[in-house]
Parts: sequence; C-alpha cells; structure tokens
Amino acid sequence: MSGNIFGTLFRLTTFGESHGPGLGGVVDGCPAGIPLDESVIQRELDRRKPGQGGIASTARKEADKVEILSGVFEGETTGTPIGFLIRNTDQRSRDYSKIKDVFRPGHADYSFTAKFGVRDYRGGGRSSGRETVSRVAGGAVAQELLKAHGIAVYAYTVELGGIPAEVVDFEGAWGRPYFSPDPEAPAKWDERIAEVKRQGDTLGGVVEVRATSVPAGLGEPVFDKMDARLAGALMSVGAVKGVEIGSGMQAACSLGSLNNDPITPDGFESNNAGGILGGITSGQDLVARAYVKPIPSISQEQRTIDASGEAASITVGGRHDIAAIPRINPVLKSMMALTIADLLLMDRRLGVRE
Amino acid sequence: MSGNIFGTLFRLTTFGESHGPGLGGVVDGCPAGIPLDESVIQRELDRRKPGQGGIASTARKEADKVEILSGVFEGETTGTPIGFLIRNTDQRSRDYSKIKDVFRPGHADYSFTAKFGVRDYRGGGRSSGRETVSRVAGGAVAQELLKAHGIAVYAYTVELGGIPAEVVDFEGAWGRPYFSPDPEAPAKWDERIAEVKRQGDTLGGVVEVRATSVPAGLGEPVFDKMDARLAGALMSVGAVKGVEIGSGMQAACSLGSLNNDPITPDGFESNNAGGILGGITSGQDLVARAYVKPIPSISQEQRTIDASGEAASITVGGRHDIAAIPRINPVLKSMMALTIADLLLMDRRLGVRE
Amino acid sequence: MSGNIFGTLFRLTTFGESHGPGLGGVVDGCPAGIPLDESVIQRELDRRKPGQGGIASTARKEADKVEILSGVFEGETTGTPIGFLIRNTDQRSRDYSKIKDVFRPGHADYSFTAKFGVRDYRGGGRSSGRETVSRVAGGAVAQELLKAHGIAVYAYTVELGGIPAEVVDFEGAWGRPYFSPDPEAPAKWDERIAEVKRQGDTLGGVVEVRATSVPAGLGEPVFDKMDARLAGALMSVGAVKGVEIGSGMQAACSLGSLNNDPITPDGFESNNAGGILGGITSGQDLVARAYVKPIPSISQEQRTIDASGEAASITVGGRHDIAAIPRINPVLKSMMALTIADLLLMDRRLGVRE
Amino acid sequence: MSGNIFGTLFRLTTFGESHGPGLGGVVDGCPAGIPLDESVIQRELDRRKPGQGGIASTARKEADKVEILSGVFEGETTGTPIGFLIRNTDQRSRDYSKIKDVFRPGHADYSFTAKFGVRDYRGGGRSSGRETVSRVAGGAVAQELLKAHGIAVYAYTVELGGIPAEVVDFEGAWGRPYFSPDPEAPAKWDERIAEVKRQGDTLGGVVEVRATSVPAGLGEPVFDKMDARLAGALMSVGAVKGVEIGSGMQAACSLGSLNNDPITPDGFESNNAGGILGGITSGQDLVARAYVKPIPSISQEQRTIDASGEAASITVGGRHDIAAIPRINPVLKSMMALTIADLLLMDRRLGVRE
Repeated sequence: MSGNIFGTLFRLTTFGESHGPGLGGVVDGCPAGIPLDESVIQRELDRRKPGQGGIASTARKEADKVEILSGVFEGETTGTPIGFLIRNTDQRSRDYSKIKDVFRPGHADYSFTAKFGVRDYRGGGRSSGRETVSRVAGGAVAQELLKAHGIAVYAYTVELGGIPAEVVDFEGAWGRPYFSPDPEAPAKWDERIAEVKRQGDTLGGVVEVRATSVPAGLGEPVFDKMDARLAGALMSVGAVKGVEIGSGMQAACSLGSLNNDPITPDGFESNNAGGILGGITSGQDLVARAYVKPIPSISQEQRTIDASGEAASITVGGRHDIAAIPRINPVLKSMMALTIADLLLMDRRLGVRE
Repeated sequence: MSGNIFGTLFRLTTFGESHGPGLGGVVDGCPAGIPLDESVIQRELDRRKPGQGGIASTARKEADKVEILSGVFEGETTGTPIGFLIRNTDQRSRDYSKIKDVFRPGHADYSFTAKFGVRDYRGGGRSSGRETVSRVAGGAVAQELLKAHGIAVYAYTVELGGIPAEVVDFEGAWGRPYFSPDPEAPAKWDERIAEVKRQGDTLGGVVEVRATSVPAGLGEPVFDKMDARLAGALMSVGAVKGVEIGSGMQAACSLGSLNNDPITPDGFESNNAGGILGGITSGQDLVARAYVKPIPSISQEQRTIDASGEAASITVGGRHDIAAIPRINPVLKSMMALTIADLLLMDRRLGVRE
Repeated sequence: MSGNIFGTLFRLTTFGESHGPGLGGVVDGCPAGIPLDESVIQRELDRRKPGQGGIASTARKEADKVEILSGVFEGETTGTPIGFLIRNTDQRSRDYSKIKDVFRPGHADYSFTAKFGVRDYRGGGRSSGRETVSRVAGGAVAQELLKAHGIAVYAYTVELGGIPAEVVDFEGAWGRPYFSPDPEAPAKWDERIAEVKRQGDTLGGVVEVRATSVPAGLGEPVFDKMDARLAGALMSVGAVKGVEIGSGMQAACSLGSLNNDPITPDGFESNNAGGILGGITSGQDLVARAYVKPIPSISQEQRTIDASGEAASITVGGRHDIAAIPRINPVLKSMMALTIADLLLMDRRLGVRE
Repeated sequence: MSGNIFGTLFRLTTFGESHGPGLGGVVDGCPAGIPLDESVIQRELDRRKPGQGGIASTARKEADKVEILSGVFEGETTGTPIGFLIRNTDQRSRDYSKIKDVFRPGHADYSFTAKFGVRDYRGGGRSSGRETVSRVAGGAVAQELLKAHGIAVYAYTVELGGIPAEVVDFEGAWGRPYFSPDPEAPAKWDERIAEVKRQGDTLGGVVEVRATSVPAGLGEPVFDKMDARLAGALMSVGAVKGVEIGSGMQAACSLGSLNNDPITPDGFESNNAGGILGGITSGQDLVARAYVKPIPSISQEQRTIDASGEAASITVGGRHDIAAIPRINPVLKSMMALTIADLLLMDRRLGVRE
C-alpha cells in the first residue's frame, strides 16, 4: 500500500476528484487470459449507484460509464496494465462558496488543508466518497481473476441504524434492497431511515464481507497476514471505523476453550477464526465485518470554524445519502477482492517441492 | 507492507524463530542524529518479558538481551540501517514429538503447513508470539524518532476477561500491573485469571493505544490513510481479531449529529474520530483499540487432526500465558510507533509553498 | 520499480498500447502547489513527435493531445494523483496478418509470447515505443517539480551512426535538429541517415543526459544509489543497451590518480564521477550517457520463425524511423527527471539536527 | 529497490559498517524447500576474500565467517526470512584522525556528510566496499534457488588495466586467478598490477556476468525490464560506472541489419540482445558487462578539502587493493543472481491458461 496505489503484485492505482473531468485507475499485474470487457466492470459500478437498494441513498443521477483504455485484447486480459476511465457528468458549477472556507465537521476538510495547504473544495475533491468508483472498477477486475480460481466474494448488510439482520441467505443478498442477507430486514431499515431523515440526521451500520472457496495457504507471515491486509483494505474506505475478523470483538471476552475451532477429519467445526490462522487462510470461508460511521453531512446546524480559525456554523444541504450503506457494500467487496487477488499472486512461490 | 518488511520509508525487516539461534531485524530509513543505544531498546524489551504485570504471564525466563550491530555511531543514529540481534537462550531440546505431527487448534500449524509444505514445529517457529521481540526492538527505535518530534505513544489495557478498566490515568499505566490505566482494575483481573487458570482455560481482552502531540497532516489519502495503516499494523499482531479507531464500533449505531466532532476556535470538542479525518491526522490524540483473542494454548483436551488427516486429540501443556495481555501491550505500542514514524517521514513533501 | 509503476515516492504508473483506445498514466506523490496545466505537458510531448529534428523520424502524424484528468486545481497541483490521457488517433485497422504469427527479429514479439501466451500484435502493443508518451507526460510533471527546486535536465545527442557531436552548447540543443549540442553535427547526421535509409537499414547512437543545480545529498546508500536508479531508469527505455555515469566506460581503463576528481575550496576540479560519489550526489552536474541500438524494424528481409516454430522470413515495411534518436531524447530526459524527483522526495528525512 | 532493501518478492535487506560489530542481512521471500546451510554461503564469501586470485588484492585478513540465524530447518529453507550475520574481527582502533575531517577524493566522504550530517568515518563506514559481504551472502541464497531451477550464474574478468582477456572458458573462470576466462591473461595482469602498484596508483577493468539456462519470459514490461533491473543492480555496486547488455555500447554504432539476431527453428543465430528482447528474457544466455573504475584509495598525494572547507592534501596509506577486480566478481555475480531470482518469482502469474 502506498498513497493511491494498492497491492504488491495485483496493483490498483487510482485517481480522480468528485468534480474534476473524471476518475479512473490502472490495474497492473493482472495475469493474461482473464475474460474481461466493459460490461463486467459496469455491472459492479451499477451496484454502487444511488437508488439501488432501499431509501438510504440520494436520487442524484450518476451515469458512471466505464471505458477500458488498455490491457484487454479480443475479450481477454493481456497481462499489461488495464487503464480505465469514468467521466464525471455532474460537473455543473454549483455554488461552493459556503464550504470553500468552512471546515465541515466529520469531513476531511480540516486535515486535508493541514496536509496540502490547498484543497479542491468542490464536493470534497479527492476525499469525496466518489473516489470509490475507481476501487469498484478495480475490484471488478480482481473478482474476474478470483472467479477463474473458483473464489467468490460477498458484501451484505448485517446491521443498519442499530437494527440487525440475520444472515439467512448471503448469496441472495446482492439482489435485495440494502444488500440484505435477510428478507425481513429491509422494511425495518426503510422505516428507521425515514425517521432519521425527518430529523435531518444520518445513520451508520455494519457490513459483513465473505469470500468462499479460498484455498488454504494465502497470506504472508508477520506483516502481510491476510487479516492485516484485509483490515487495512477495509479501513481505507472512508466511513469505516472498525474492522473485525471471524468472532472478532467477541473473542476478546470469550475463553480459549470456546474460541478455538476444533479440527476434524471432515474439516473445522466452527469458524471463530474467520478463515485465518496465523495470518494464513485455512480453507474456510474468509469472514470480516466493517463498522461504518454515520455520514457526516447532516442538515442540522453544526458548530465549526472557518479557514481563518474563527467560529462559524454550517448546515450541509444538498442531495446527501442518509447512510453509506448500501452504496459502500460494493466498495468493501472490491477491497476484499483486491486483497485476496494480491495475496493469491504473492503465494505463487517456486519451491523445489512444487 | 510486504511479508517480513514493514513500512515504506521507515522500514523494519524482521527474522527469527522461537527456537532457532536468535531473532532480530533491521531498521532502514531512520534519520541520522537520533540518540540511540542498547539500553533504549532493552528497556522496551524488558516490558515485554513475562512477569512484568499481573499474573497473566508465565514464569518462563527469557533473557532477551539486544545487541545493536550497526547504524549507530557515537551514541546517535547515522542514517544507515540499524541491525539488531536477540539471541535465543531457551533453546534446549524439548520434546516436540507431541505437536510435530498434530495441528494445535487456534494455532497456525495447519495453515503454515498448507502454505509452505514444511514448518519449524519447535515452539511455533516463525508463527510463535516470540516473533514480536523484533517488533518491540524496532518500535523502540521508532519511539526515539517520535520523541525527537514531541510525539509519545501509549498502550494500556481497557478490558481483560470481560472486566473493564476506566481510563483514569493512561500516562501512569506503564508502571502498573497489566499496564492498567485504572489503579482498581488489576486486583479484579488477578482474580479472574486465577479462576480461569484453574479451569485450564485462557482469556482475551482489549488494549487501547494512543499517541499524543501528533501533528495534523500525517497519513496519505485513499489507501495509505493513517487509520488503514494503523489497522493493518495492529491486526498483524498474532492474537488481534478486531481493531477500531476513535468511537469505532459504537459509531455504527450512532447518529451523524452525535458522532461528528464539533470544531471550535479552541479545538475539537470531542474525539469520536480518534484523531483522524479522511485518513489524515487532525492534531488530536490518535486513539485505537485492539481486540485480543484468548491464547489458543489451553490445557484442556481438544479435538484436532494429525498430519495424515486422522482424528487426534491434544492437550497443550507447558508454561503458557493465560492471556496475551499484558505482554502484547509493548508490541501494540511498537506497531503504532512504527506506523506513525513511517507516515511522519512520508509526509515530508517538498512543496513550492514550504 | 515494479512493472508499470516507477518510483517510491514520486510514482508514475503508465498504461496503454500502440493501437488501443489510448495511453496515459497517473503521477502519484507530486507535492501540492506546483504550477501545472496541459500546455506544460503538451510542450514535452510535442518534442517527442516525429519530424521534430533531422530526417531520422517518420512522417507519421501523431496528434498526441494530452488531457489532465485530476490532481490539478486552479492551475496548481493539489497533492492528489494526476491522471492523464492521450488518445490514439491513428487506430485504423491496418493489415497485421503479416506480423500476427511471425516474430520480428530484435522486437519483443517472441519474448512477450513466451511470457503472456497472448499478445496484442497490432503495432507492437505494449512493447511499442509508443508506450513512452506516458513517460514523457509523467516526466513533464517531474520537471516542473525540479524546476521549483532550481534543477534543470537536458538530453542531447552526442553520437549518431558512429558520427560524434561536440558538446559545445547543451543548453541550446533543445532547439536544434537531433537535439544536437553541436551546430555542425546535424548536417553530417542527415547525410548518414539518408545513406542508410537507401539501404533499408537503421542506425543507433548515444544520448547524454545532464541535470544541473542538483543539491548534494540525493540518492540512498547501497541499493538506491542515484547512479543505480538512473541506470535502471535509462535502461528501461526500449532501445537502450548501455548506460554510463561520468567518465563511465573510460574509467575502466584509467588510473586512480587520473580518475579521482580533486576537491578544492572552489569545488571539484573535474567531473569523472558524473556528479555522484558513493551513490549520492555531490552537487556537481549529474551526467550520464545512454547507448541506443539501431531500430530493429528494417526493410531488408530477415530470417525468423512463425508462431508454430517454422522458418519464415519477414520484411518490416511501413513508416518506420531510421533511428530512435532524436525521438528518444525527451524520453531519456523524462526518465532522468522522474529519478531525481523521486530521490529528491526520498531525501527529505526528519533528523533532530534539521 | 529501496535504500538497503533489494527486490520485490525475493528481498535482501542488508546492514553493517566496515568497523562496527558486524554486517549481515535478511533474505525474505525465499521459497521453502531449498537446500541450504552455512557452508553454501561460506563458499561464496570465501571467493570475495583478499588473496583469492592474482595480486590485485591486499593481504588483509578478513575471516568473514557467516552464521545463519533463522529460516532454515533440517537443512532446508522454510519460507520464513533467513537472517545471517558476519562479525567484524578486524575492529582494532586504528588511527582515523587523518581521514576523520578530510574528504578523500573519489570516496563517498563528501556526499555522505552532505546527506546525513554525520558519518562513521572509520574505514568508510557504510560506504565501504565491506558492505558487499552481505550482498554475497544474500546472493548465495539466490543462487541456490536458481540452481533448483537449473539456472547458473557466472562473473569473469574480461579486461583489467586495459588488457583484455578472451572468453575461451567462462565456466572454468571461477578456479583461475582474477576469475579469468582466459588462461593466458592472469600473467599479463599480474605484471601490469605490479607496475601500477610501484607508482602508488590503482586500476579498473571490466567484468562480464552471464546466466545460463534462463527460461524465456522473465522480466516485466516497461519499468521492471530484466535489463533495467540488471543495470540498476550492477550499478549499485560501488565502483561500477557503466553497464551494458549484450552487444551494448557497440550496438550504438552498428546497423539494424547487423545488430538484430536472426531467429531459426534451432534458436537464435547470435546474441547481440544479451538474452533480452523488450525487457523479457528470450531463453538465450543473459549477458551483461560492468565497467569498474580504479580504486580511489591511492598512495599518491591528492588535493582535497577538510570539513571546514579549507584546502588540504591527503595520502591514503594502508593495506588497500590495487583493483576492485577480482574481489568485486562474486559481488556482481550475486547481484545478477538476486535480480534473476526476484524476476523469476515475479513471473509466477496465475493465468486461466496455466
């Protein structure tokens, strides 16, 4: 990981601001011979669009059409870098004077200014959630590589606004509102969101990500453990404030005798480990959860300061989502796919034993 | 991050198995002119030794004397790599036949074998917790660099076996049993541990890490966010199964109006963000928590399989700790220090505005 | 360096094939506040176009219009990644059946097929010299950063087809045919090239690159030496088969007493070292030379094999250059600029002495 | 490449000063199952010792006993990092007052001081040629990995003090004085060296490195080309001022029709490419040459300045070599082995076609 580049062998470089000409990226290190065209990437991007599930997201129209610029020939990857571009269409000159010189609480305005001296204040610039379209596009490529090795990844909502869902069908979640693994949950979530919206407030939630058919042996000992890489990957998504693997936080108040997963000739008896032992995959499902904070853009008035340090107040209007879920789900799925793809390639070591 | 190397500019490479000749590492990228000698590293290593705090850890004697091999001249770093070595003294040929061909539940035995084909089964080899001595040594160097920039790091226990401590004095925690920020907690923890020990079982807990006087502006946007790097760093420590920043998991069931930290001319009014906005430090304390699972080595009998896939049972005897806390605290403190040191150096960009 | 990504802190990621939709890249790690717009990049790209100097290059029209996609706001870099795109305009479906299944001698056809199994055979695909437009665009950004620190880079032809030029005015070379530092040389080179062209053959030559006002102290000891990085950077350009620093090859048959550069209170008395001592810049001009092989596309008939291993013959027609010089000069200048920019940022270490 | 770390997957981290406690390193990323013990490394280190070949090197006794500290179990690598240590035995407190405050011409004294502010002036510290023992140890491990894949590497002297050798038997060179591929050359070189030594002067030369049985397909397009990586690797060795691949410099004054290597059903007809096409190995021998400058430590008086910038003169006495050859040969061989090992592992991509 390094700035705007993710991965060691399967590398995604991204660029783009929310209100510049466009966003995009380069996937470098994807093996040759993977079937790929724009529709595969577009399908994932469409899941990140507003209005896909539930009423949590805005009505803002974002076309998000992807164009592949290189690395694909006759319907397959060639092993050379895959450049892609998503043009911004909603670039009209809105009035940003209100936020130009005022730091929005919970946003990166203050810290970006401290770091760079300048910032593209239009819609959050590089720190906008819009940055994640490049992750989803890169993640779509990673998922095609994983698919070629039998691995599938999922991201479904297990809690929203404090209301949990049961994981009764994670495979069907992609087709339900809020990417819910539970057919009962979306109605409750709709209600909660409507209520919070009336108050001019926002909500957080929890997304579980899962990878199935992951071969044992992925992940590198010590610093490049699968869980370390996965935690870093998920936490790199803007709104995520906590990450856990397997039994996660619960493990901290459990006992060794309960938390250890017994092994039998037919496999592991439980999966408190989340599919990772000593940082290396065990062949079980890889399971992690990301804790997502409420969106900081609220329509209530908030106390803050302006660029000269004077007290100010701000009310963030506009067409904002009430929760990062479900739009964040494809992003988290992508980060999991990118992580596994990288460690899959890392694992191909040449031993004399092979 | 890459295998056994941590960091981009301030880089720690580590090596060593629990029962080989020794463990050590190389700190590459440390600036010149930082005061350093062996006593500085030794002091941190001594805090990782068994018997430092409470009764959670074993009586096993580990000398852990560090020798600096390079990179220091006349009491100061020279800018060249700092090699260091900690010899294993407890190398006597114990009988490992019991675990040689049987996979211990909750340990890396199974996954390491899947990955490498071979494994040094003596005491866990590279996947032993003993690997962390090199992290603590490297972290000691990082802390000296941070100290030269006014930054201090802390790691104190906020929960053990389900029993919480109050953070009444984190600065004094380093001098208390279990590195407790609460003078009342250790007695309760002693009791809980004694009870669990009698049952042949083990416990987990929660460690909070904190850095004070961190300048605003550290962390790189998108993939190298301070929280992403910190989460990866903490999760790379063996027993950690969950990581949260600031209000963390709680944020997921909070509201935007409550979770946003108001900004005033005198600073932020709260620190739900844990000192990080958009992945970049805000100048507030950096606060994270690591959720630590119970030690998998329990003296109760467990079901498992042997190397040929046959059902087996195992009772892990020997002098094992009841909880990874408090020995894990200096390790987590080191990982935080290494992370901040790296992003501190990363931030030194040359703008025309400087 | 890693595949299609160059640099550790100032990083250029490139993508694109000669006959795909376009080529481009991402500059990640450029500090904020550097003046930049498309004209700055375009100016460098225009120097790489055919027909700029002498008669060595083809009449093929390549528009090579660059578009900046991100990272620039109100005429200055923002510290976020700078994405850029150069669309291919000359994409018409030529007849590639002749080279589709035959390996051109001296080209990457054979080795690419061995590596990837597939290859985009249209015009060389990723291994085409056209790939270098992205380097020139990235190098233009690097040069703006260097300019802000007073550093200038140059690339001028010191030999073509065995005929040397004298370095009488390297600063004026950018305005002369062949980027010649010698007003007399171009006429001789024109003549030699016309002669070789009639024979259906091609020529090589030597380009000297130079950076002035480089501060002392850049370059990292051991593996990241300035000369090591520079050699790798220059040799990564397709046609380069040799690289030397300062007195270079000549040093190998010199004596220590002649090759050492005496130091006086007014500076060094000579520059056999090429501005680098122990891998670290000395404050003198940085001087290196790249030895460029003849272009492998010749119109004479050559023996080769086809994809099934059968003997074949090939005559590479089309509008090909006679020499990579002078079009390679902006590319080499860019690689030097990228290298220095990266090591300039690397050098900003935080010592207590600062 | 990054400071004191070499490689992306097969990584060597080194440390150590000429007069500190010791030198060593860590090989990270070596696959499991490679036979290895200390004798394998020792054998290579012994070839780097003074007095191995010819009279070019000093009589200084350097024991250079290597100790493996980790990563090897029951005679084989385990996939975990291989730490190694070579203690300095010749550490007696010589009088360094003469060079402490005076910059030796041709050495790194001036540039290191400019960079770091401090320097370990004892015997050159980190910039001493002694640093290369760690490279040779790491290279020995790389050679074992290559051997397991049938690849062998060689480094033999093709010119010394302007007197060439013929490459009549490169495979036997390892057993001859000066690692000469020509039984006739050593006598002439002895004579030339004796003469130069009497004058208090030093000599340079040229070393050819070669790898046989390299599979086609190694090297990554664009920046990670095999030749780019090899050039960077060889140039990172202190005294090297020029690197060429295959026909190298000669290619610059050749014609396309002569320089292209024709391909036949039985293989390539010549090897002007040095085994690399488009940066990727072709299956032919990999051939490169390193141009080595005369050792800067001469016993003649030289003009220089002292730390306060005043004019000074210096005569470097002591037991110094007359030429870096032949002691540099094992170092260059190691750098070639490390480079190929890294790109060998990099090439293991997972395509659907595999």
